[in-house]
Amino acid sequence: MLIVKKFGGTSVGNRDRIFNVAGRCVEEYKKGNDVVVVLSAMGKYTDVLIDMAKEINPNPPKREMDMLLTTGEQQSVALMAMAMASMGVPAVSLNAFQVAMHTTSTYSNARIKRIDTERIRNEIEQHKIVIITGFQGINKYDDYTTLGRGGSDTTAVALAAALHADLCEIYTDVDGVYTADPRKVKSARKLDMVTYDEMLELATLGAGVLHNRSVELAKKYGVQMVVRSSLNTNEGTIVKEGNKMEKMIVSGVAADPDAARVAVIGLKDEPGVAFKLFNELAKHNINIDMILQSVGRHGTKDITFTCSDEDADEAAELIKAKMDFESIDVNKDVAKVSIVGAGMQSNAGVAAKMFEALYDSNINIRMISTSEIRVTVLINASETERAMNAIHDKFDLGSDK
Amino acid sequence: MLIVKKFGGTSVGNRDRIFNVAGRCVEEYKKGNDVVVVLSAMGKYTDVLIDMAKEINPNPPKREMDMLLTTGEQQSVALMAMAMASMGVPAVSLNAFQVAMHTTSTYSNARIKRIDTERIRNEIEQHKIVIITGFQGINKYDDYTTLGRGGSDTTAVALAAALHADLCEIYTDVDGVYTADPRKVKSARKLDMVTYDEMLELATLGAGVLHNRSVELAKKYGVQMVVRSSLNTNEGTIVKEGNKMEKMIVSGVAADPDAARVAVIGLKDEPGVAFKLFNELAKHNINIDMILQSVGRHGTKDITFTCSDEDADEAAELIKAKMDFESIDVNKDVAKVSIVGAGMQSNAGVAAKMFEALYDSNINIRMISTSEIRVTVLINASETERAMNAIHDKFDLGSDK
Repeated sequence: MLIVKKFGGTSVGNRDRIFNVAGRCVEEYKKGNDVVVVLSAMGKYTDVLIDMAKEINPNPPKREMDMLLTTGEQQSVALMAMAMASMGVPAVSLNAFQVAMHTTSTYSNARIKRIDTERIRNEIEQHKIVIITGFQGINKYDDYTTLGRGGSDTTAVALAAALHADLCEIYTDVDGVYTADPRKVKSARKLDMVTYDEMLELATLGAGVLHNRSVELAKKYGVQMVVRSSLNTNEGTIVKEGNKMEKMIVSGVAADPDAARVAVIGLKDEPGVAFKLFNELAKHNINIDMILQSVGRHGTKDITFTCSDEDADEAAELIKAKMDFESIDVNKDVAKVSIVGAGMQSNAGVAAKMFEALYDSNINIRMISTSEIRVTVLINASETERAMNAIHDKFDLGSDK
Repeated sequence: MLIVKKFGGTSVGNRDRIFNVAGRCVEEYKKGNDVVVVLSAMGKYTDVLIDMAKEINPNPPKREMDMLLTTGEQQSVALMAMAMASMGVPAVSLNAFQVAMHTTSTYSNARIKRIDTERIRNEIEQHKIVIITGFQGINKYDDYTTLGRGGSDTTAVALAAALHADLCEIYTDVDGVYTADPRKVKSARKLDMVTYDEMLELATLGAGVLHNRSVELAKKYGVQMVVRSSLNTNEGTIVKEGNKMEKMIVSGVAADPDAARVAVIGLKDEPGVAFKLFNELAKHNINIDMILQSVGRHGTKDITFTCSDEDADEAAELIKAKMDFESIDVNKDVAKVSIVGAGMQSNAGVAAKMFEALYDSNINIRMISTSEIRVTVLINASETERAMNAIHDKFDLGSDK
């Protein structure tokens, strides 16, 4: 088997942790597997480098920032190779130049375009563990780029796809994907498996241990992922295509407190109003999530939408400047709670069951939005945990059916 | 003019120093010159990285050590580019991959083979200050190498040669090359100019502010160097080919306390004895400096030589194991004192004048060795400073003739 293993900064934050990771990789290697390891910068080192840069220049050129930041992963991979060498296992570290990890040109937020696998394959054929810098690439100018948020996960999945790896393991500080946040829902249970689509919905909802970009890439290339802990040997959660063996209808409950509701009351009821409103917001890069349009009084209409807390006030200001309406209301004390599950597509009554759970708990639903595998409601933020528990219990997610 | 400027770790050790260097480079740039800057890692950062490595693996693979160490200069150049950007001057940092700084394969002690100048020239044509990582290269395997001692100076000179630069300025923490170590000889005076050969002899004698490798390279390609301080704007010392304008016979006095004398008494007086002895030492990588062979008593011969303090005992052991002789004596309490000067070649009596100075000071000469532009004597280590001052005064080096 060829296995790509990705470890985040916390997992390589000091000498002991580096040896913990080295030990796990060597164990896999000694079973006869080919092992490719992807690492982030140690601990909070990327933040240290950012602080150094800001001290020199509060607004540093992004090209130079990437030149600076890429040193972090290079240090991690070199030290990891040294650790493995001290255990008597041949290992080699490679950076984005050595791999030839081609990305788009955009500094600080590049996308992977193509990976040359020749060097990696040569090293694997020489029975070496290959340790590769996550988060970084090179662009057509032969300059370093970084991949932005979730970058190292994306590197790992892209490598797994390019190398046709059998498995891409993402090591993190949690045991896997849960039916709900265990800190908020006591009966939350680790899932053995989720589909790519479920994982994507969960990531969007802020419950994700994986960044969307890596999951999208895994789905596109059919890379089987496993999310598991670097601190124990528990099995983790498999992320793959699929009809689930378990036949669970709902996989999990997720909440996102970063939501604000903007209600625009008494807009003119004429064509193009919604277009004008949302086009204005889009021009200012304000992402809109849920949208609800209803008929207002006296031939007007009301449009209510949600966006992030951060963007809510700017959105209201833009609307005030550009639109005719009676009143506007911004409410940041709201949260999104969602159920996610591939089984929903073919099961009637799932949404109703969720609403029933909330009704039983006397929780008011302010907005509703659905996708094929997700139902999201907007509720008062203060009721989030109560709502999650009520839904989790209603669907009996804590029991290992 | 195209000027290559090299700054060591101390010169870029913190924010203020980075801006000091940036300021000097920008000043040169604003005069209309093309500026290429070569930097070392910040302050003692290379040592920090070495300590990190040793904590992981006391005997780390050299390939991985170079992978780790090269991050140091990459951080320096990125931060410098940010500093220049904040001053409104376009700058770009380049590492060994981006320049294509080709070296031999030997990790930790590589030699520069070839520099691709296309990228650098392109950046210069776009009127950017180009900031390049010193000390590092890439080998035929596409792996990082480092150049060993004096590496960043060598990078600067090699770049100056490849780019046909008009000048290669080596910035350091002293004002230039002195007639003697100012800490030991009060009347020591900064030289306006020395020849490559004088600089080479001074470097070998431990008095050099430049490493031999960089001077040899400068001589080979006719690169005019200047050694000057990064802390002030004094003129510094020019190093170039030449018949000196000043017509000074002796340029300076240098001392090297790291010398040991090994005297082998009563060797057989037959052919091949010297060959056998020095061949044995060469096989064990022991560098020999001065050699003196004299006729001993009763048809024997004596061979006396100097080596570094560190190698002296091993040398004696090797000789004991392989050679027939009467007795051997190791003395580490000796030092070399030398006069260096291109003018010596055509001036009789220079050596005699040096010996006279020592005689006047009642300092015993234990060995003598000469080259075309150097006279070296071995004396008791305790008399080093007194000898230096006596010679310095005798040749009147403190006065600006």
